[in-house]
Amino acid sequence: MARTTVEAVDFFYLAMPVIEDVGDGSQDACVVRVVAGGKVGWGECEAAPLPSIAGLVAPMSHSACHPVIDSVLGETLETVEDIHRIAARVRARSADMLQSSHILSGIDMALWDLLGRLRDEPAWKLLGWKKSYPKLPYASVLFGDTPQQTLEKARAMTAKNFRAAKFGWGPFGTKDATYDADHLVAAREGMGKDGILLVDAGTIWVDDVERAKQTLPALEKTRATWLEEPFISSALGAYGELAKASGGRVRLAGGEGAYDFHVARNMIDYGGIGYVQVDAGRIGGLTDAKRVADYAQAKGVTFVNHSFQSQLALNGSIQPFAGIEKDEICEYPMEARDVAYAITVERLDRGADGMVRLPEKPGLGMTVDTARFKPYLLDVEIKVGGKVLYRTPAI
Amino acid sequence: MARTTVEAVDFFYLAMPVIEDVGDGSQDACVVRVVAGGKVGWGECEAAPLPSIAGLVAPMSHSACHPVIDSVLGETLETVEDIHRIAARVRARSADMLQSSHILSGIDMALWDLLGRLRDEPAWKLLGWKKSYPKLPYASVLFGDTPQQTLEKARAMTAKNFRAAKFGWGPFGTKDATYDADHLVAAREGMGKDGILLVDAGTIWVDDVERAKQTLPALEKTRATWLEEPFISSALGAYGELAKASGGRVRLAGGEGAYDFHVARNMIDYGGIGYVQVDAGRIGGLTDAKRVADYAQAKGVTFVNHSFQSQLALNGSIQPFAGIEKDEICEYPMEARDVAYAITVERLDRGADGMVRLPEKPGLGMTVDTARFKPYLLDVEIKVGGKVLYRTPAI
Repeated sequence: MARTTVEAVDFFYLAMPVIEDVGDGSQDACVVRVVAGGKVGWGECEAAPLPSIAGLVAPMSHSACHPVIDSVLGETLETVEDIHRIAARVRARSADMLQSSHILSGIDMALWDLLGRLRDEPAWKLLGWKKSYPKLPYASVLFGDTPQQTLEKARAMTAKNFRAAKFGWGPFGTKDATYDADHLVAAREGMGKDGILLVDAGTIWVDDVERAKQTLPALEKTRATWLEEPFISSALGAYGELAKASGGRVRLAGGEGAYDFHVARNMIDYGGIGYVQVDAGRIGGLTDAKRVADYAQAKGVTFVNHSFQSQLALNGSIQPFAGIEKDEICEYPMEARDVAYAITVERLDRGADGMVRLPEKPGLGMTVDTARFKPYLLDVEIKVGGKVLYRTPAI
Repeated sequence: MARTTVEAVDFFYLAMPVIEDVGDGSQDACVVRVVAGGKVGWGECEAAPLPSIAGLVAPMSHSACHPVIDSVLGETLETVEDIHRIAARVRARSADMLQSSHILSGIDMALWDLLGRLRDEPAWKLLGWKKSYPKLPYASVLFGDTPQQTLEKARAMTAKNFRAAKFGWGPFGTKDATYDADHLVAAREGMGKDGILLVDAGTIWVDDVERAKQTLPALEKTRATWLEEPFISSALGAYGELAKASGGRVRLAGGEGAYDFHVARNMIDYGGIGYVQVDAGRIGGLTDAKRVADYAQAKGVTFVNHSFQSQLALNGSIQPFAGIEKDEICEYPMEARDVAYAITVERLDRGADGMVRLPEKPGLGMTVDTARFKPYLLDVEIKVGGKVLYRTPAI
């Protein structure tokens, strides 16, 4: 019998007509289509689309710097082990192309979707979970420009029946600790005393532990469930120091910058985080994300998806921890742009109980309709030495 | 008085006519030209050229995913602090574009070259060193396909008057520990008993500590000065375990994968390495490399440049530790391809004493002659939505 092999890998660059200079990752999308055995799988990179497309097709530089597509096209895709093998192959052969982890992420997601369709199983089942548990979505919103705006945003989330909300970026951390405290008090007031309040500093303090410490008392007083990304992902020492300084009264969250299993593991082992936030669209897809979920369980750390893009990416980000009942909180983009809803026919809307459930259908269980996203499609053409290496494929 | 600002940032993709699938990073080059105040500075990214060019000009995705060029063009360039500010600006505004660190690296190198020319000072002096000390170059060569070939390569290096040589990649680590030992014994024999033998496993064991341990006895017996990159850069736990298992008898080296100061620091703090190898063309240029050099000194770790590209990149990789007299060993590509010598008029040839010295002239102290590299120049054109975002600039 003929083997089932990967026949095509195509990247699509979607974008809103205008991209605003704000911390909202849903303004564009790097969507991946993979074809094998008469089935089509879809994934999405949480990545800058243009360098990702370029790295997909870039001419080889040397044996550890291959174009990513060369390690995927023509590979056998019949089992879970095949996906692991393809991922390892990309890692080894494109190790020196930094962007390759982001590129792999969307491909890996599409491979799980595709294998699920070939095998008639949901991706989460192929990942080894027996059941997909409902998740409690928290609304991801930006801090307001003023504490008053933050209060109003928190009230709006409560009115929309969100028990949990995360406030991030904006002016938080850019001024002094008193200013931060004003925003935190406003957010807590708007969420009510039983609301789950999450805070995202958006790496604003880079590696400045002393500055971060100043905001700990307000975080503790407003009972923030976590403080996310006080520092850049690589500043493990700073994370570790702050975790110690907090005395366990403010838990740290981080990991969205992780581009492989080990980077996330290091944040657990050395950064002292209590919540590991993994974006399947960055870490290398569902494969490495699941590995982190398993490691987190062994270490008593809570896994949370990171997702600030489309409904497809959100779905892919939840699959790796679908089967962990106690890790209930899940990120859920609330203010996403139109393009984020234009990729799939289905949406991961909250149920009547306010919970989010993954589809039980094969793969990621969503239908991608290219006609829906065509209005957002940007034609890309890349030529090197007079030869066209990439041109947006027909849809 | 008018401020001196960055007027142009241009990337050039150079390549050999044929790229071989071997571990030789000198087969292409991503060269950077920056213009300010009537002077021109040059740098080089140790990076896949095409995704680097794409990330330079990619349309913004959101506030943490800007095209790199937008954080550099028009910025004031008059002082060392200006370079630090530009680097921090790129880091913050392109944090979510993984490739951005590699892109920044060549720009940062060019900025130091340029500022040196504006201020009539060598880059190493601007970096804070009083003197540039001679370095002892080790020849970087690939392991032979057989132990006999490795022996011959080692003898050839000795005949060329290299006191130190590093053997890397090839078949090393791909079979069993006995096979590795045969290559190590051959290399030691060829280097003579006083030669400095360095070994590069090229991440072949990924994160497999047990496999790596099996090769420790042969490394100790052949008195290898270091074992480089047994694992991928992010596998800090594996590095730490192996460092402990070696009992200090085999020192580990690593860090070439570091794409910012913190990643290198983590390898020192948690990976237990004794030699930190930094590629200025990857870590973010001379700025972050110098920060690692300072940190390494404070921690009793030896700084070594990583460089496997052109004479320009080699020069840039040495500048950050030029002033550390005791950190004498320096990587020195021995088998580089023609394109690696076509960028600069000058070469960093060894002196009569076998040592390498940086130029005392302003900036990096080398002359880039575009006519020399023109035969290797690949025209690149990138169009998005019908608009040309990049076209190889005139030289």
